[in-house]
Amino acid sequence: MSMSTGRVTVPTDIDVIDDTIEIIKKWKADAIRDCDGTDMPEALRKMDIKQYATYYTTRKDNAWAKKHPDEMQQMYLMSDFVTAKDTCLRIKIMEHFYKDQFKVNPTNDIHRWWEVIDRTTDTVVTNWYFDEVSGDVVIEEAIPYHAYTVSFLAFIVWDPVHMYNFLTNDWVDEEHQMTLDVRLPETQKHVIEKLHKFCREREDVNVVRFTTFFHQFTLQFDEFAREKFVDWYGYSASVSPYILEQFEKEVGYKFRPEFIINKGFHNSQFCIPSKEYKDFIDFQQREVCKLAKVLVDICHSYGKEAMMFLGDHWIGTEPYGKYFSEIGLDAVVGSVGSGSTLRLISDIKGVKYTEGRFLPYFFPDTFHEGGDPLQEAKVNWVTARRAILRSPVDRIGYGGYLKLALKFPEFIEYVSEVCDEFRELYAHVGKQTPYNLLKVGVLNSYGELRRWGAHLVHHAIRYKQIYSYTGVLESLSGFPFDVKFISFEELRGNPDVLNDIDVVLNYGSSYTSFSGGEEFDEKIITILRHYVDNGGGFIGIGEPTACARNGKFFTLYDVLGVDKELDFTLHTDKYNWQCHNHFITEQLEHEDWGENVNSVYALPGTTVIKQEDLSVKLAVNEYGKGRAVYMNGLPFSFENARLLYRAIFFSCHREDEMKQWYSENYNVDVNVYPSTQSYCVVNNTYEPQETVIYRGDGTSFSLCLEANEIKWYQI
Amino acid sequence: MSMSTGRVTVPTDIDVIDDTIEIIKKWKADAIRDCDGTDMPEALRKMDIKQYATYYTTRKDNAWAKKHPDEMQQMYLMSDFVTAKDTCLRIKIMEHFYKDQFKVNPTNDIHRWWEVIDRTTDTVVTNWYFDEVSGDVVIEEAIPYHAYTVSFLAFIVWDPVHMYNFLTNDWVDEEHQMTLDVRLPETQKHVIEKLHKFCREREDVNVVRFTTFFHQFTLQFDEFAREKFVDWYGYSASVSPYILEQFEKEVGYKFRPEFIINKGFHNSQFCIPSKEYKDFIDFQQREVCKLAKVLVDICHSYGKEAMMFLGDHWIGTEPYGKYFSEIGLDAVVGSVGSGSTLRLISDIKGVKYTEGRFLPYFFPDTFHEGGDPLQEAKVNWVTARRAILRSPVDRIGYGGYLKLALKFPEFIEYVSEVCDEFRELYAHVGKQTPYNLLKVGVLNSYGELRRWGAHLVHHAIRYKQIYSYTGVLESLSGFPFDVKFISFEELRGNPDVLNDIDVVLNYGSSYTSFSGGEEFDEKIITILRHYVDNGGGFIGIGEPTACARNGKFFTLYDVLGVDKELDFTLHTDKYNWQCHNHFITEQLEHEDWGENVNSVYALPGTTVIKQEDLSVKLAVNEYGKGRAVYMNGLPFSFENARLLYRAIFFSCHREDEMKQWYSENYNVDVNVYPSTQSYCVVNNTYEPQETVIYRGDGTSFSLCLEANEIKWYQI
Repeated sequence: MSMSTGRVTVPTDIDVIDDTIEIIKKWKADAIRDCDGTDMPEALRKMDIKQYATYYTTRKDNAWAKKHPDEMQQMYLMSDFVTAKDTCLRIKIMEHFYKDQFKVNPTNDIHRWWEVIDRTTDTVVTNWYFDEVSGDVVIEEAIPYHAYTVSFLAFIVWDPVHMYNFLTNDWVDEEHQMTLDVRLPETQKHVIEKLHKFCREREDVNVVRFTTFFHQFTLQFDEFAREKFVDWYGYSASVSPYILEQFEKEVGYKFRPEFIINKGFHNSQFCIPSKEYKDFIDFQQREVCKLAKVLVDICHSYGKEAMMFLGDHWIGTEPYGKYFSEIGLDAVVGSVGSGSTLRLISDIKGVKYTEGRFLPYFFPDTFHEGGDPLQEAKVNWVTARRAILRSPVDRIGYGGYLKLALKFPEFIEYVSEVCDEFRELYAHVGKQTPYNLLKVGVLNSYGELRRWGAHLVHHAIRYKQIYSYTGVLESLSGFPFDVKFISFEELRGNPDVLNDIDVVLNYGSSYTSFSGGEEFDEKIITILRHYVDNGGGFIGIGEPTACARNGKFFTLYDVLGVDKELDFTLHTDKYNWQCHNHFITEQLEHEDWGENVNSVYALPGTTVIKQEDLSVKLAVNEYGKGRAVYMNGLPFSFENARLLYRAIFFSCHREDEMKQWYSENYNVDVNVYPSTQSYCVVNNTYEPQETVIYRGDGTSFSLCLEANEIKWYQI
Repeated sequence: MSMSTGRVTVPTDIDVIDDTIEIIKKWKADAIRDCDGTDMPEALRKMDIKQYATYYTTRKDNAWAKKHPDEMQQMYLMSDFVTAKDTCLRIKIMEHFYKDQFKVNPTNDIHRWWEVIDRTTDTVVTNWYFDEVSGDVVIEEAIPYHAYTVSFLAFIVWDPVHMYNFLTNDWVDEEHQMTLDVRLPETQKHVIEKLHKFCREREDVNVVRFTTFFHQFTLQFDEFAREKFVDWYGYSASVSPYILEQFEKEVGYKFRPEFIINKGFHNSQFCIPSKEYKDFIDFQQREVCKLAKVLVDICHSYGKEAMMFLGDHWIGTEPYGKYFSEIGLDAVVGSVGSGSTLRLISDIKGVKYTEGRFLPYFFPDTFHEGGDPLQEAKVNWVTARRAILRSPVDRIGYGGYLKLALKFPEFIEYVSEVCDEFRELYAHVGKQTPYNLLKVGVLNSYGELRRWGAHLVHHAIRYKQIYSYTGVLESLSGFPFDVKFISFEELRGNPDVLNDIDVVLNYGSSYTSFSGGEEFDEKIITILRHYVDNGGGFIGIGEPTACARNGKFFTLYDVLGVDKELDFTLHTDKYNWQCHNHFITEQLEHEDWGENVNSVYALPGTTVIKQEDLSVKLAVNEYGKGRAVYMNGLPFSFENARLLYRAIFFSCHREDEMKQWYSENYNVDVNVYPSTQSYCVVNNTYEPQETVIYRGDGTSFSLCLEANEIKWYQI
């Protein structure tokens, strides 16, 4: 294949000039970059290689920030819940926040922009004042034993990302960088002028790497400088009275801080979004994209590319939102933590190319004596590769301090192999769409807007409450399926969206935006029953379709053939516990359903496949011409991915067609590329594997693969 | 002690006359009885011993039933949920019911007494008809993919208890007994006359043992004659248009079948009772007690005692209800399956004496070759004895076929010992109130009305969903505490009910009547916060006070110091996981929290005692002058009982006073009887135990007890 160099970005710094050149050669890289805390050495600026410059619109400008203290970015914060024990209650609103990060903003009309709420009765309190000296909000007519909160605006006096990098790297003698609110006219003008100046002065720079535009995702630290609240999708740090007044005018109703604070949940993705929140993020996306376009246009006017980092201050740029492509970006780069986060980047449309920043980041938390960056890199690569083979990023790269990585020669060597392998597979796959055997739909409250982002709290970090569900997208990220994300709103408006969907998946904990909760109204219920009755497949995992109502918990109990016992039907005898051998579990040896969703029982007629201690783990149900599969949970493993794969084929009556472009061994994938008339067989593990491969015509051959090996074939 | 004979009832039959006499001698019994399926032999009728006659008002009278088919007892049944797939839907209403048990009643105005409900939209459907030939309800304008149910009245053509006994004993050639509705005037008159006749004719009978009065608890069988639905507290078989019309008049609003059917839950005790249901059971209690009094008065007029069996057709007689004592019964007898079911009987006021019918019942399900009735009897006795020592029944007895028991001489011998032991301890305890160290309140929707009945599905039967909670009452049934059951309604009306309560307990699964769900309104929340803040103790187990609202799940999160993660606050970091040694767990070696209530986390400041895999099992919190304890679950064991005992003393700041009348070994109890200036030390196990006993003044002594031994001391 032709492309034997390039597609790789190397981080550099002033203290590793020669090493950088050597690494560029070794990795056959075609781009270099600086990072937060590093600088592009003068000596490399003229090198014949693509030059990225990390660019900050919101920080590294304390001079401006100090002169314009009211133009700092603000965040909505909520105080603790405080229970009144008397009729006068004083709430220390900044208690348990990190004082170096936030400074209360008492300057705007606080009775308009703050909100005191009686959380026992869910009513707004109007009779209160802020005692600036003590930092207390004082409620003089509190009701004893009611709990109160204060929602208020605070300036971000230390940028959370700078703070994180500062603390992680033990920086000293470095001024805390404040965050500017680029949406405000004066600061906006200043930032635009600065970008012009930068572009003019830095002729060496080919790519302005925005990290990112204007608003940081919600990230708060506590009084011990520990992370207090983190939501990668959170909009709470994208507010100011200036913005909110515009929003009010646009939507025609009065703004309430509660639209943002949302009981202290800060509109976690797990909450079913309210109308007001959907209005707000739509407004923000439009405005952010509009302003981002101004900056991108400036880059273009100087002949530079504009690249956006999908992280940090990315709020409002939602890459799968309505306005993103209007920004006119050349590229998006993002951090790859798994197959699904790879596709979070690689599936983006409306840019010329995407880049995956692979892990580990060259920071001392991993690159220290006794650390094992090689192992982390191996896991990261093999995990991402499954997804790359379905939808490749166009480039890969690394970030952080190169000098730290240089101390781990095995790591350097391994990355070199990764770069070669990436280029080889990119040469095969390129921008073509691989062959898809099926089309599946993932149904939740966010749909395509949060494509590949379901159940994500903060990047690919594991939480007890999500790992049983993240296995679904992780599995799908490497399957030969076309994956569409469908929101309840979209489905309600257009049931025909299901016409070309073979199988619908709905999964998550009850009442979350992912399983759907209250979204399961008459319309959704009847659409889905109709869909399955007429031959569609439906897979529910965890507490799918759950919303306790009218005698049932799973609103699609009849489709799924199971429901969960909430004690109210304990009096009804349940006899369907006998387990049956089944197509779906033919290859299942090590059951792992994740966190236990307890007390699920099968209705009469349902085929129970696995149950444990009177709780169903896996069951299937025939519903008219269609089929449903219920699973208790799906932590990611190759074995569980296979379980889901078989369940999907079963649920749409295609189990006879499963063995096309198929590996008998579930540690091995097969991917087909029609445009190049090629296919590959890939060993996803670091052990050798034996398997039987089925071609598209059903013929098969045996095969041994070395650890991690990919073999390419012509059709 | 004086009482060395009596207080024991023996079952007899025509084929065991001599054996009965021998057993009476052996067990030193003072009463004999017949049972369902047995007869009192003529030869024993004149014996100088108290004679019980089992008496049925509702059945064993098919001649009358056949002549008055409309006067059979009716039950509200609900059809399956059936999903329409077209605009015409036919629902086979009797599908999955046992045809020999029920016969649809189409004779009354079915459009008034039946109800067809669209369960997808929770609306009543009016346009339907009943096709008597096919047994279908036909909905001609159904909405496709909506689910429908039919609530309808059916006659009970085979009495469920007769059916159960028939099937359990493999009876043949026995006519299925129908159930009469004694509330209907004509049948009522007939039943009254029959009772007169019986009393006149059966001069030998001293005690008329009603089994019971009029309405069977809800018990339905399915098409295979398997139990389909069972609720020992269920009122669904206590209905008829005649009764419901009276009810309508009384309450002044229109009756709806849904008041009884309640989504198919049939007002399970686990449901928070609606106003309408509370009105209905109050009405029924009053009417049932009024009519029961008529029958009891007849017995008295013939010089006979009237005894009620707390089981079978007992609905409406609720022994802790407002009207019970007005019946004027001499005695209540009930089946003893545990300490808490013992106290369900022994705590009853308004009768002269109570009797516990011990297990096993002499039926072939236990008394067959290879069966082990001795073991069952041992467990039953030692379990009940803990509770007897706090609140004794006045008599014990057995039921079933004596001839079956006679084949197990070890069992016969053991019961003889039990009888002696019972008489001995009754001589000590009698009707006095044992010394109580504390007063605890159990808070749920039913309060005193369902004293000792919380979490009961069907007598003492274990369910996966309840065993983690039934340990609470089982523990309390043997503790030296005064136990008061408090309903939310009572607490709302009179917060002073807590004035003399040391510790309040609230426990169960979320949204059930036991944990409270929606009952936690502003009033309940503030009353309880005030109570604990001012020094009260609060213990929450499972999902206490839970009702997702205003940002929290446990409404008393601040008191308990814990909440449950429902995913919406996943973004908030949780740091309080460090476990601490604590007074409460000093004796805990084998943790058993029962079914896992997952994802409970501690708020800052709470003392975590036990957590597992980031889910808190046990924690304590200081709240003003009071304290709260959170526990994940409490299956019954002596070790867990001790855990609760310590938690109770801790929560009311009395841990320093715990070692009064106290056994260091938790397998051993100490009970004190002030009136007789005595106390006993009792080994609750069938192994020898060593312990240290603390007297009331704090002095102590070591002691060895033989298996199951009780030692009595004078103070």
